[in-house]
Amino acid sequence: MAVIYERVALIGLGLIAGSMALAIRRAGLADEVVGYAKSAESREIAREIGLCDRVCESAAEAVDGADLVVLCVPVGVMDEVAKEIGPALKKGATVSDVGSVKRTVIDAVAPYVPDDVHFIPAHPLAGTEHSGPRSGFAELFDNRYTIIVPVEGSDPAAVERLAELWRGMGALIEEMDPDHHDLVLAVTSHTPHLIAYTMVGVADDLRRVTDSEVIKYSAAGFRDFTRIAASDPVMWRDVFLNNKDATLEILGRFTEELFALQRAIRQGDGDHLHDYFTRTRAIRRGIIEAGQDTDAPDFGRIKAGRD
Amino acid sequence: MAVIYERVALIGLGLIAGSMALAIRRAGLADEVVGYAKSAESREIAREIGLCDRVCESAAEAVDGADLVVLCVPVGVMDEVAKEIGPALKKGATVSDVGSVKRTVIDAVAPYVPDDVHFIPAHPLAGTEHSGPRSGFAELFDNRYTIIVPVEGSDPAAVERLAELWRGMGALIEEMDPDHHDLVLAVTSHTPHLIAYTMVGVADDLRRVTDSEVIKYSAAGFRDFTRIAASDPVMWRDVFLNNKDATLEILGRFTEELFALQRAIRQGDGDHLHDYFTRTRAIRRGIIEAGQDTDAPDFGRIKAGRD
Repeated sequence: MAVIYERVALIGLGLIAGSMALAIRRAGLADEVVGYAKSAESREIAREIGLCDRVCESAAEAVDGADLVVLCVPVGVMDEVAKEIGPALKKGATVSDVGSVKRTVIDAVAPYVPDDVHFIPAHPLAGTEHSGPRSGFAELFDNRYTIIVPVEGSDPAAVERLAELWRGMGALIEEMDPDHHDLVLAVTSHTPHLIAYTMVGVADDLRRVTDSEVIKYSAAGFRDFTRIAASDPVMWRDVFLNNKDATLEILGRFTEELFALQRAIRQGDGDHLHDYFTRTRAIRRGIIEAGQDTDAPDFGRIKAGRD
Repeated sequence: MAVIYERVALIGLGLIAGSMALAIRRAGLADEVVGYAKSAESREIAREIGLCDRVCESAAEAVDGADLVVLCVPVGVMDEVAKEIGPALKKGATVSDVGSVKRTVIDAVAPYVPDDVHFIPAHPLAGTEHSGPRSGFAELFDNRYTIIVPVEGSDPAAVERLAELWRGMGALIEEMDPDHHDLVLAVTSHTPHLIAYTMVGVADDLRRVTDSEVIKYSAAGFRDFTRIAASDPVMWRDVFLNNKDATLEILGRFTEELFALQRAIRQGDGDHLHDYFTRTRAIRRGIIEAGQDTDAPDFGRIKAGRD
């Protein structure tokens, strides 16, 4: 595959940036990938494992001369990073990000992006329960959607160039406006994560059931919750603080429906329960048909490699 | 491995019974496995794929002469099946079941078990989102817990014999009393399933986010919910109707904690969110260390066979 950006700078060296560095290298999409992380330990690990071509000592140094700068930091610090790199950005460069929330990131970053630099927010819908510079792998984005969220006045050619990079990393591309993105993600990701965290917290708190029982008997359903409830706490704190309205709206719907099911259990209304449980099967079939999951009988147990 | 029961009768030919038939055959644990299902179609499929040695036309016929009878039917019909087979049970035989709830099953079945027959309830904590006679596979119970729930007066030798069968099918064995079993399962399985069903129902109901969007962007967390929300509706209806008290208790705890997190989001209390999300990571580590899940980076996507 051809080089799409001569130099790419990744700010933040966690799961997403690490996977981007490896996916870019896999397909030869850039001549040079430089990186920066706030934590000295992360920079050291990145150097040790050769995650990118060059690890810099400041964000401003990393973006110097870069054709594409991708902010891969928690949503809550996007503004301070943008403020620092703004003056160092190369004319004609593109600034993008990978934040899980788009409206507040746009509001935080846009003011610091010079007029002669493109700003094109994006969000790859991919992740694992692991974090840090060692957690990345080149296949993370394969067959997963990356949503590009152009802002007013985004140059179509610059948008298409960024889309090309993501396609080269294996992703499927969609465009969306920021508010719709934030609502869709509140449904498909943010609220499910909050609920999973809550369920795991409840199990951890019970006195009459020990943690060791919860762990031993987790295969009956609970372990699927623990997997998503093990994600990076800082990232998720920032997601909820920055997608407050949409998350609270979906949570309201959720508790409303949960109370209806709770009442059906209390009243012994088997028909209500059966109808509800039948309806939800159809969505599952759609996900398997769309290639966004497998129907392997027990994926969680089969020894699986990174390939 | 040695034969443990000469003849085993499986009543109900779904995922669990089918997997038992295959696991018993894999290890040579019985001379003959006979089966019965209420649905003529299921019986026909079971015969076609050779699921067991003999498929009978009635439950009473199936249990005739059997040394072990296992009730693998939804919890809500245990009583009517027990009533039918009671008079046909062989003296000295053992009756067991695989129901997800134990207290109500014991109350439903025990009255029909003759004095000269052992009654030893059990519950294998294993399952997939699939159901029906084609869904079974011999590895389902490998390294998963089966909880044996002896009733008052259960003969220790008969209990140990049943445990041997389950070990032969690959399972790890624990004993528990019925009420504690029902509470543990309310935490690790029943409430998580209800919550997953609810979240999928909410997503399906929203007008501003289409089903096709939910399906496309499910990899961001939602798909883990759809997997458990695709389980058999009849089985789950019966679980909630029969484990009402424990499920409602855990649901009460759940909504209490969810409301606290919701308030933290509304008030922008990042510390509360961060602390909560950090605590839940420890349970996840325990599950991986206990061998009840893998930490493969994205198990859901990797092509996994049936071994």
